[in-house]
Amino acid sequence: MSDPLPPPDSDVRMRGFSRRASVAAALRWLDTQLFTLDSEAVSPAAAGGRVLARDMVSGYDVPGFERAMMDGFALRADDIAHASHTSPAVLRVLGDVYPGREFAGEVTAGGCVRIMTGAPLPPGADAVVPVERVAIGDAGADGPTIRLDEPIARGKHVGRRGEDLQRGSLVLEAGRRLRPQDLGVLSSIGIEHVPVVERPRVRLVVTGNELLPAGAPPTGVRIADANGPMLAALVARDGGLAVSSGIVPDDPEAIAEALRADADVILVSGGSSVGGEDHAPLLLARDGELAVHGVAMRPASPTGMGTLDGRLVFLLPGNPVSCLCAYDFFAGRAIRVLGGRPADWPYRRGQETLAQPIASMVGRVDYARVRVGSNGLEPLGVAGASLLSTTTRAAGFVVVPEECPGYQAGDTVDVWWYD
Amino acid sequence: MSDPLPPPDSDVRMRGFSRRASVAAALRWLDTQLFTLDSEAVSPAAAGGRVLARDMVSGYDVPGFERAMMDGFALRADDIAHASHTSPAVLRVLGDVYPGREFAGEVTAGGCVRIMTGAPLPPGADAVVPVERVAIGDAGADGPTIRLDEPIARGKHVGRRGEDLQRGSLVLEAGRRLRPQDLGVLSSIGIEHVPVVERPRVRLVVTGNELLPAGAPPTGVRIADANGPMLAALVARDGGLAVSSGIVPDDPEAIAEALRADADVILVSGGSSVGGEDHAPLLLARDGELAVHGVAMRPASPTGMGTLDGRLVFLLPGNPVSCLCAYDFFAGRAIRVLGGRPADWPYRRGQETLAQPIASMVGRVDYARVRVGSNGLEPLGVAGASLLSTTTRAAGFVVVPEECPGYQAGDTVDVWWYD
Repeated sequence: MSDPLPPPDSDVRMRGFSRRASVAAALRWLDTQLFTLDSEAVSPAAAGGRVLARDMVSGYDVPGFERAMMDGFALRADDIAHASHTSPAVLRVLGDVYPGREFAGEVTAGGCVRIMTGAPLPPGADAVVPVERVAIGDAGADGPTIRLDEPIARGKHVGRRGEDLQRGSLVLEAGRRLRPQDLGVLSSIGIEHVPVVERPRVRLVVTGNELLPAGAPPTGVRIADANGPMLAALVARDGGLAVSSGIVPDDPEAIAEALRADADVILVSGGSSVGGEDHAPLLLARDGELAVHGVAMRPASPTGMGTLDGRLVFLLPGNPVSCLCAYDFFAGRAIRVLGGRPADWPYRRGQETLAQPIASMVGRVDYARVRVGSNGLEPLGVAGASLLSTTTRAAGFVVVPEECPGYQAGDTVDVWWYD
Repeated sequence: MSDPLPPPDSDVRMRGFSRRASVAAALRWLDTQLFTLDSEAVSPAAAGGRVLARDMVSGYDVPGFERAMMDGFALRADDIAHASHTSPAVLRVLGDVYPGREFAGEVTAGGCVRIMTGAPLPPGADAVVPVERVAIGDAGADGPTIRLDEPIARGKHVGRRGEDLQRGSLVLEAGRRLRPQDLGVLSSIGIEHVPVVERPRVRLVVTGNELLPAGAPPTGVRIADANGPMLAALVARDGGLAVSSGIVPDDPEAIAEALRADADVILVSGGSSVGGEDHAPLLLARDGELAVHGVAMRPASPTGMGTLDGRLVFLLPGNPVSCLCAYDFFAGRAIRVLGGRPADWPYRRGQETLAQPIASMVGRVDYARVRVGSNGLEPLGVAGASLLSTTTRAAGFVVVPEECPGYQAGDTVDVWWYD
């Protein structure tokens, strides 16, 4: 036989939510807590997808010299100004110039230099004639010659110094999420260390005496942790660095200690409600600030959030769909913003027609998983906050806003796709 | 003075492309070479974004027991079938049951057990009444009691065994790119090792005597490598594992050796054309198969591809915009498909109106970088294949198909966004 019921004034008595915050109010509080983290320096190779912390200005002209844009011959345009089919110009080939090397001499009147794409234009030359437009003559006593039967404009097929990037020009702006080509540009202007916004350090605190480690065979009345690996992947997607505390027992001291971990954000999964083993809300209220507890949404109503010594703490319901929903509405937003990313969902957004109604009520936000049927979107297991499989069978989700009593079949709605 | 011109029959003579392949023909050849790589086992924590190699069937019912869906009291519905305001039912509280633990006794007639969400339903009970609907009585000599003033349906607030995942059911299908919630589901059915498609191993071979290492200050007639970091980020985006060979000199033996690196895909940047130091096409033709050399597109016309002892080899132009374009059209597709991903571009696609024309010609594909102006899309530096900054200033690109002579201002076109 178990313990008797605790007395009514106990900390672990069964409590109801006296009042639920609206999603909008919870987001308003959350947004007052958000800022962009400091910057750190990483190599260009490690900067893909990171958020640039400062404007980047080029310290160099790229290229730093005039260069050939074609394989051909560098020459003086004046020398072939009168060349024609009937009266071709003949130039003496003085040598070659390859990329990365300088031609040792100068192109003087009547001379030319064979040049490769990207090689520096030799002194004296002012245009490049592509090799296809040149007849290569025999090598006589004075060396090889070329014959040209039309003129060329000065500067033709010559890349100007600084034509890609000019010294002093703004190359990339702070706040930009770095694309592959951005890394190329940074690498080309002597940037060995790229200033990027730090990744938020996110501590995962998965609680629940019923939990076995993720991937363990479920046995008896215990289930394997699903939220830990899901949260780790969500945090990585949103640019955070997840560190797991493993499975923390439903023990107040163990949870209190986990809440003080060295991190920017603490995600507690499970024990977020008002039941007998829901310790985290009480501990957060005791040791820090429990700013929001209970949100008018379905699922994820027993969500809490607050702060503890500068850490943002999210109390996510243990039911895995609720956990995903609370992460998506609140914790993910915080991680994205701390890391310099846009607050918006990273899901692709579309518009579709509903094949079936979605029930909700005014004053509550609903997060409805949907699949695509032959007649449009079909909601999946609206009531099943515990059924993670509704989110794997779903193609995405529809949000029913607070002011909306629900959607009818045939309504066109916004949908966010999970893929 | 440099070396004299090489004789016309030399391997390094200046050659023109005798014939360029169409983009469609190049893709047709490429697609004949593509397959899905073998699978490997990774932990659920490492499986985010990976491609599932096999159908996953659950070996367990999840949950493996009947459980409470609310905090409340587990009881026998028959006991309160006649409960009403005027004639409430009173049940004796036999004990508590928490998640992960079993109630040691049985719920007999007139009894109930306090139960927490997720805890196993005690033997004998067949419904859960939420705590909010119960009046907790005083603890008398026989222990605490509860009072209920309405009946409840059998099975109410009880989660069925296997309601999330049934033993023997198909949970996730082969070929699926694993989402965060998928990892949760796999973790909950005892999967410690997830079979995923291997990541293609991609060797980066950046050639060019003019190149300094990425991030080095450009000096004299040398420029810093931009393609290496760009390609590494592109390969990572497309699910490949990039390994860099560093900067390889324009030396036939060094390049020939790099082409034999242990990899699924070799990306050679630079020296892909028909100039004096374009060794890679000749070496690939000598040691393997040079299936395509020269493609009717702008930029990236001097692109080559082929095979060497089972490796797919891509010869990408050294000009960084051409390099990006050739990667996107050909190499990226191969890396995605080898790794089990869709062949399609990972760029977000939209439709926009052109503010300015895009010149092209029938028989050639154009890859035009565009930015968004106040009147629609504006092409950026169509001619500047060497100007990587056109791809950082651009918001995306427009493709002018082979059969199209170009677009007019006002045309609505597909655009792929870089972000």
